[in-house]
Amino acid sequence: MRIDETHDPALTSWVESANGHADFPIQNLPLCIFASEGKERRAGIAIGDFLLDLAAITDALGDAWTEELASPVLNGFLALGSGPRVALRQRLSELLSNEAHRDGVEGALIGQSEATMHLPTLIGDYTDFYVGIHHATNVGRQFRPDNPLLPNYKYVPIGYHGRASSVRVSGEPVIRPSGQRKPPEAEVPVFGPSRRLDYELELGVWIGCGNALGQPIPIDEAEDAVAGFCLLNDWSARDLQAWEYQPLGPFLAKNFLTSVSPFVVTPEALAPFMTEAFVRPDGDPAPLPYLDGGSERPGLGLIVEACLSTRAMREAGMPPHRLSRGRAADAMYWTVEQIIAHHSCNGCNLQPGDLIGTGTLSTASADGLGSLLEISQGGKAPLTLPSGEQRSFLEDGDELILTARAEADGHVSIGLGECRGMVVG
Amino acid sequence: MRIDETHDPALTSWVESANGHADFPIQNLPLCIFASEGKERRAGIAIGDFLLDLAAITDALGDAWTEELASPVLNGFLALGSGPRVALRQRLSELLSNEAHRDGVEGALIGQSEATMHLPTLIGDYTDFYVGIHHATNVGRQFRPDNPLLPNYKYVPIGYHGRASSVRVSGEPVIRPSGQRKPPEAEVPVFGPSRRLDYELELGVWIGCGNALGQPIPIDEAEDAVAGFCLLNDWSARDLQAWEYQPLGPFLAKNFLTSVSPFVVTPEALAPFMTEAFVRPDGDPAPLPYLDGGSERPGLGLIVEACLSTRAMREAGMPPHRLSRGRAADAMYWTVEQIIAHHSCNGCNLQPGDLIGTGTLSTASADGLGSLLEISQGGKAPLTLPSGEQRSFLEDGDELILTARAEADGHVSIGLGECRGMVVG
Repeated sequence: MRIDETHDPALTSWVESANGHADFPIQNLPLCIFASEGKERRAGIAIGDFLLDLAAITDALGDAWTEELASPVLNGFLALGSGPRVALRQRLSELLSNEAHRDGVEGALIGQSEATMHLPTLIGDYTDFYVGIHHATNVGRQFRPDNPLLPNYKYVPIGYHGRASSVRVSGEPVIRPSGQRKPPEAEVPVFGPSRRLDYELELGVWIGCGNALGQPIPIDEAEDAVAGFCLLNDWSARDLQAWEYQPLGPFLAKNFLTSVSPFVVTPEALAPFMTEAFVRPDGDPAPLPYLDGGSERPGLGLIVEACLSTRAMREAGMPPHRLSRGRAADAMYWTVEQIIAHHSCNGCNLQPGDLIGTGTLSTASADGLGSLLEISQGGKAPLTLPSGEQRSFLEDGDELILTARAEADGHVSIGLGECRGMVVG
Repeated sequence: MRIDETHDPALTSWVESANGHADFPIQNLPLCIFASEGKERRAGIAIGDFLLDLAAITDALGDAWTEELASPVLNGFLALGSGPRVALRQRLSELLSNEAHRDGVEGALIGQSEATMHLPTLIGDYTDFYVGIHHATNVGRQFRPDNPLLPNYKYVPIGYHGRASSVRVSGEPVIRPSGQRKPPEAEVPVFGPSRRLDYELELGVWIGCGNALGQPIPIDEAEDAVAGFCLLNDWSARDLQAWEYQPLGPFLAKNFLTSVSPFVVTPEALAPFMTEAFVRPDGDPAPLPYLDGGSERPGLGLIVEACLSTRAMREAGMPPHRLSRGRAADAMYWTVEQIIAHHSCNGCNLQPGDLIGTGTLSTASADGLGSLLEISQGGKAPLTLPSGEQRSFLEDGDELILTARAEADGHVSIGLGECRGMVVG
């Protein structure tokens, strides 16, 4: 991916809140769908503390992609692929940096605090992967201490289909799910609210062009299928999961809710922050040829972070407590390109606006564990919070906040926004 | 469900091909979406050898549901629930039986041979269950001879999310998928076309009203969520499945294609054919309370059948060979109502137009096995066809034809149409 004038660290915006903004300086320009008073869902981009209403500046955009940007979902625009995405970015960078355009554009800015964010696409399918090798190892160790990773893990980018209907944007309350659970010592299962509710820190990938049924995406074209990234919380009921998942995988333990951050941060915005992919340890098998290749720096340099705020902490005026922090590329045994090539290698068709989760991003470090299941070792080692409270799993009133930042020498840092969710009983 | 005048066995239609029609007599009236020369996708019902274009008879329908029936998908109409569905059925029964309406309606008939069938809905989510207990036992026995059924099976209606984007209507070619497989004796997996391609004989359930996120559907209201039924072929690559499915379930082994018959056969049409549900053997646990209840005759009396036609058989003018035949209610350990109550018990939202598969419907009998995996005992006992050919799994050129019939004393039989698919290399 090319680094061009839109990444220039000297570039600033006449939208003053953008300059020095943690997430949305002019070097980011992520797409989104939002609504505001008197206005239906519409396409926008985030700039500083504002959203820019793209349907309101069609003149300034040269009447390009007018139909796609007037839609209440981004599927149509993302389907156009990288050409229009890059051209829109370049045009917006010019419009928002050059004071000469201010009069024609400023009226289309809406404060983020006055907007309601919506899902950026109508999600046809949501697939969740399991490419976090430390997570897979940590979880596997709880079931199989001697042999935590299954034999297929280093050959197959493991994934499964999730529920599209229950994907929601950041802020959706997390209604504690009920279901069957069977404690090891019990004879029979019982039905009731989950007692082992957990989060999973993941990144989400938004699909752009996709592929036709029966036509796999080769690994060296997989990069073109990616339209952008978000944060993703794969809420998980561990007690339901343990009882239900054999032999067809997780189902009710996961499909009650998946939360995503509302901004589609493009591959163009992330270009300066791409890095080497995960280095396979000596002795690991090489990827099979259909998974071997891809871009030169396919590793996601994003630093992902999960924080927890309990009701007692908020009442005491305490800030959220960081549960974990780590670099995505250090967690992901398989790259996004490998995920896409694998997903489509049997002819399965990916469609514009589809969502793919990476799986939980845990690093090898104790301060980089992306779920409470790992942090509390399945409940055996409860975490003590600064408030003195203990947590093995999530309690009612707990709020999870996921964030991600991209940093690189000589470049302005950008962020993915937030993915929040509070548990209600 | 009420049996009313629309089920009267004496009722005939002025559409003469309907009278005595195997699938579509006037007692059936299934909904569908079709296109024909010069006409875009539209809603119809099947009557004899014809389709009736519903958007073309809005006057005769009393200008009811005009917007929903003018849509190129049935999601909107199915979302209206059973009231409008029953009213439409009653009105169509009158229009198609009473000669007085012939002049106003006949012009809206299109021969099925001149129409192209499409998926009846835009499928938001497709979920596949595993309620065929004999299938689960037969498959489990190949992995665990002493303990074929896992401990959760008789408590949990096991299901998993499938791929919505690759669901296609009957007739779609089955492109043999490639993927990783690892023979037991091999050190490492290889990538290539599946060598153990199989079919699975299932029924599909179309969701009507659905539920809001966080609001489970109680078992005694689950019947209302069902808008109709179809045949479903869950094409499966067994070699890919065996290598990939641990620990998150089937993925590429299934998501390359799922075929369905194009007609939504309503619960109203099936009312006379409902029967007692599967009788749990003595000693089996009672369903947990949230799964206990439902309608009085919740068993599907449909007789489902799978037939195979090889290229050599067609060239020799031989008819398709029946692989299996059995009654759905004899295969399904869990009812459709239990499936729906379970699926939503954690708050997962079902949406109008969603598709749910039952899982493979094998009976306890050797002539009622719903997959080649079971018929050939995993390849150990190849099937010999009337042509002298042998089959352990599907070969290129093989065509699978699924059908289902409903029969009951004192009632006119109806059918679900066909679900066909031919394997191409």
